Order: sequence, then structure tokens, then C-alpha cells
Amino acid sequence: MTEKVCIIGSGNWGSTAAKIIGTNVTKYDEFDDKVNMWVHEEFINGESLTDIINTKHENVKYLPGVKLPENIVANSNLTECIKDATVFVFVIPPQFLKEVLRRMVGQIRPDARAISLIKGLDSSHSSIRFFSEIIHELLDIEVSVMSGANVASEVASENFCETTIGTLVKKHGKLFKKLFSTSYLKVTIVNDIIGVEICGALKHILGIAAGIVDGLDLGGNTKAAVVRIGLMEIIKFAKTFYPEVQKETFYESCGVAEMITLYYAGRNRMLGEAFVRTGKPFDVLENEMLNGQKLQGPITIQKVHDYLLTKEKIQEFPFINAVYQITYNGAPADTIIKNI
Amino acid sequence: MTEKVCIIGSGNWGSTAAKIIGTNVTKYDEFDDKVNMWVHEEFINGESLTDIINTKHENVKYLPGVKLPENIVANSNLTECIKDATVFVFVIPPQFLKEVLRRMVGQIRPDARAISLIKGLDSSHSSIRFFSEIIHELLDIEVSVMSGANVASEVASENFCETTIGTLVKKHGKLFKKLFSTSYLKVTIVNDIIGVEICGALKHILGIAAGIVDGLDLGGNTKAAVVRIGLMEIIKFAKTFYPEVQKETFYESCGVAEMITLYYAGRNRMLGEAFVRTGKPFDVLENEMLNGQKLQGPITIQKVHDYLLTKEKIQEFPFINAVYQITYNGAPADTIIKNI
Repeated sequence: MTEKVCIIGSGNWGSTAAKIIGTNVTKYDEFDDKVNMWVHEEFINGESLTDIINTKHENVKYLPGVKLPENIVANSNLTECIKDATVFVFVIPPQFLKEVLRRMVGQIRPDARAISLIKGLDSSHSSIRFFSEIIHELLDIEVSVMSGANVASEVASENFCETTIGTLVKKHGKLFKKLFSTSYLKVTIVNDIIGVEICGALKHILGIAAGIVDGLDLGGNTKAAVVRIGLMEIIKFAKTFYPEVQKETFYESCGVAEMITLYYAGRNRMLGEAFVRTGKPFDVLENEMLNGQKLQGPITIQKVHDYLLTKEKIQEFPFINAVYQITYNGAPADTIIKNI
Repeated sequence: MTEKVCIIGSGNWGSTAAKIIGTNVTKYDEFDDKVNMWVHEEFINGESLTDIINTKHENVKYLPGVKLPENIVANSNLTECIKDATVFVFVIPPQFLKEVLRRMVGQIRPDARAISLIKGLDSSHSSIRFFSEIIHELLDIEVSVMSGANVASEVASENFCETTIGTLVKKHGKLFKKLFSTSYLKVTIVNDIIGVEICGALKHILGIAAGIVDGLDLGGNTKAAVVRIGLMEIIKFAKTFYPEVQKETFYESCGVAEMITLYYAGRNRMLGEAFVRTGKPFDVLENEMLNGQKLQGPITIQKVHDYLLTKEKIQEFPFINAVYQITYNGAPADTIIKNI
């Protein structure tokens, strides 16, 4: 069987993934050289982004200055794009995922497999739901996940980094490793999907917490302590509700490496700091600082807090509770120190 | 038995420890209120540092602006200072340790216990030797260790942080927890001395490595990857040569929290970056940037590399080998990426 890869999404990270995948499929006989990339159509100076990508081989809006391989074929028609694909790479903003999945139902090969590059929690569900679970539920196919300290622009510039792929199917691990491994992206496979998902989603809480400590001007020791304690609580969360999660996963790129990165960079950290310094709520700050773009941090804090409350476990997670009380309930910012 | 505490050392971290210990001993009946602090005598505008500390209750040279409790009594006479002490806190620069220990031999109570706050490796020994081992060997007493993300000035300012104490004797853990715990310093006890020592010593290699990546202008992803891979190799080093070390120790403040801190701060990081940018050897940079002060990073790299070479294991530690080849053998700085 020739594997036919389809990338669902064409933003900053999606275009970076396309650059890597487009090159890698040509290295192995098992892949069809042509890779479809679904584009949520938009127009730039009257020209469609799809046409621009297919003629200039560059996503001028979301990854300007980086050449995409010519075998990456942009298409805004989802039905055409997904036809006959055996491998789907999901890399779209979380809020659009379900709508796209619904349009794919009944249109895909039943033996297709997917990998999700989307980090976060589903905000529409009343409980904790990861995006790999949603993809699996709607499409009824095997879903792996990929997460790591992977700022798209740096990966696109071919600066060395690592990433973690979680999968329960060994041969899918091999397949995805072929798709994503390059000299500058080192892929590690772990037999743990939920562990990778938890890292990718709950790290947003650490980002906000690191920002809160910055807003309090408390220095490096305190920030390191808060981030470490937060990481321990995330591991505890995993072990409490998902006993199958492996603690080793948190030592991978998706774990400690991402925690290290967001310690001083990232938009959730920036938002947490601005929250403490200005006292403005997240939605106002998102409007002022991010043109209204919604970050995953605030949603994740609320989801995880509400879940712990429902499970009557919130008292056992003082770090998560403190971040919630500060950001949603008007508690003073130094609660983050006093509670832990 | 009334515990009598003696602090050996009065620098930045020693004076900070004195501030905490001086307050804590008055809280418990089991401690003598008076705490001796040994000072390597020096004169400031003609007045001895010892006299200044005992009259102003401030170490004006090494921790200016911070009041020390009045029950901290500075003394430059080592024999007087250590007399009758049951608890020693070692917090002096590594290069002075052995000389001080030799002067203590035969002068101390045989039932005394010690804790070492000194991070690093003994540079004079041909093999790997931690300072707690040296203290134990020369004084023949039980030695615990303390290490963590504890920049002295921030601890002295009472910014919240954590620290890790490694001890094999449970009641010593309790004793030292009483001495060091405060509202702003959270102490965790682990049953693992060498694990804590390895974190405190080998982290200096990570500091240099983080600086090398900064010198290459490779960005956050790459630095997070290099630091993570370095941490994994340090854990491997521990498990290879000290099977009693517990992997959990690396999740404590002495482990991940310190790695997070040195990711963007610290003098070894600064040295590593300057090394790449200027091409000057470490000793020249130490003279130019640090008034000739010797950092632990360069010594640690050499010691650990030479040890691995002797053990015929260097090929199994490509990260440590790369840092050594770059800093001592003229290998290009990007070897750190290519080797791992």
C-alpha cells in the first residue's frame, strides 16, 4: 500500500510540518510524493492563499520567507483534499477542529491513521477531553499525538530541536517517525498518548503561573520553584485520573523541555504577567495584546479546576487551585506562593 | 543533648544560611541559641569583618543590607569556633575546604554531624569526589547535603523557593529541616546523598552548554533540547556509576528547578556564551569577566570527561563529550548539536 499523506491545516505550525513532511515523503518508496494540505481559504490582496502557496511555494501569510517543497499541494476543498488519504496530520486551531471532523465523516478511508499536533483541551466539553480523543471519536481511526518544545519559526529555520510522538501502535510510531524526523528535528516515540496530551495541554497552566511570578517580581528561584511544583502537580493529575500514563513521558521533550521553554517565553506567560500588573481580565488582555486571539491557558485553567471540583479532588491540587483562584476569583497574586 | 550549631563559612550563601539558622535555633528548645560562624578574616577600611559582623550584625562585604540575627557570633579563630559544636554547616569555597578540614581534625566532637552546602567536584582528586565524601573522610562524621535553586540574594530577600536535603539518616533529616525551613524556604528531604551531589555538581556542565547554544544564537527550542538531553545524560551518569541514586531526586529542587534556573541565568551560562562569541579560553574569560574567580563549570567538565575516559565509557555520553571537545579541544561550537 502506498501511503498518502494529507495535512489538515496550513498555519504557522502546519506549514512548518508541511515543509518537513514534503521533503520526507520523497525519501521513502512507501509514500506517495504528492501531499495535500487543506487550507481554510482566505484572500491576500485579492489572491487566494491556496493559489499563492501552489505558485510561490510559500505560505506568505503564516510562514513567510520559508520555501515549501513543490510536492505540497494546497487545496481549500476539504472533500477533494482528504480523498484516498491514508495518513492525516491535524494541525488546525482547536476551535475549528470539530467542524472539520464532521465534514470528514464518511469521506475517509476506514484504514486511515491520524496524528494530532494540536495542544490543549476541548473547551466545549463539560469534562476533560483531549483532541486526539475527539478525532478518534468522530472518525473512528487510530490517532497518535505529537508535542514538544517546537516553536514553529525556529523549527522552520532548521534550528535543532526535539519532539515527542505518543502512540499505542508500534508501526504507527515508525510511520510518523519517518514523516517527521530530520537532521534538525529529533523524534522520540513513547507508548503513551495521554501523557503527551497532558503535557501539551496542562503546560499552559505553568505558562500562566510563570507569568504571575514575573508580575510579582519575585525572581528566578521563586519561578523555578513554582514551575517545578506545578510540574509535580501535573504529574499527580495524570497519575490520579489516567493511571496508564508513564512518568517517563514527562522527562521527554513534550515534558521538561517545554516547561523549560515556557519558563521565560510564550504568550501564556506574557498574559499571566500582564494580568498581575494591570489587573485586567484575560479576555480584555487578549483583545488588547493579541488582537482578540484566544490562548489555551485561561481555558485550560478553568477546565482542569472544574474537573477537579467535580471529582472532589481540588484540595489535593493546591497549585492548580491557586492559579484558578487568582485568575478567575480575584484572589491576590501571591496566593500562588502561599498555597503551595 | 543541646545541639550546638557552627557555620563554617561567611560568604554570600553562608551569611544567608546564618540568617535562617540564627532565627530557627531560637524556635526549638533542643538548640543552643548561640550559633558560631567561622570567618576567613579580612579587613574593610581597617576594621575586621568579624568585628563588623558582631557589632553591626551585617556582613557588609558579602551580604550587604541584610540584618543577621544577634545570636550569630562571628569568629575567625577556627579552634574556638568549632569547640563543642554538634552540628556543622559547611558553606565555604571548595578550594579552601580541605585545609579547613585538616585544621578541624581531632578538635571536634566525635558525635557531631555535618551538612555540606558546597556544590561541585573536588578538583584535586584524580577521580570523581564530592565534597560530602571529603568531609566524611577527614572528620569521620555523618555528612548530609543541601542543594537547590537557591540564588543567595533572593533567599536573603525572603523570596519563596525550595531546597533539597539529601541524607541517609532519618533523624538528621529532621534536624536539618528544623535548621533550614522557613516560610520562604521549603525543604524536601530525600534519602539520597549522591543524587543531590550529582545534581549540584554536574548542573554546571548544563550551564556551560546552555551558554554555548546562546553563543550560537540558536534560540529557545534548541536550548531546551540541549538542556533536556544534558539532564538525561546526567541521570545516566548517576545510574551507571552510582546505582543507589534515585531517579526521583532529579525531579526535586536540586534537579529540574536548578536546570530551569540556569537555562537563562548563572555565571557558567555567561561563560559558555562568551567562550563561543570570543573564542578565548576559560581562564582568560574568568580573568576578564570575573576578576579571576574560578567557576565550577570548566573544572566539572574536565573531571567528568576524564573519569568517563578512564572508565572507557566516553562514547556512551555524547553530550558530555561534545561539551568537553568544544571547551578544551577546539571543536566547533555546533558539535554540541551534531553529537547528540
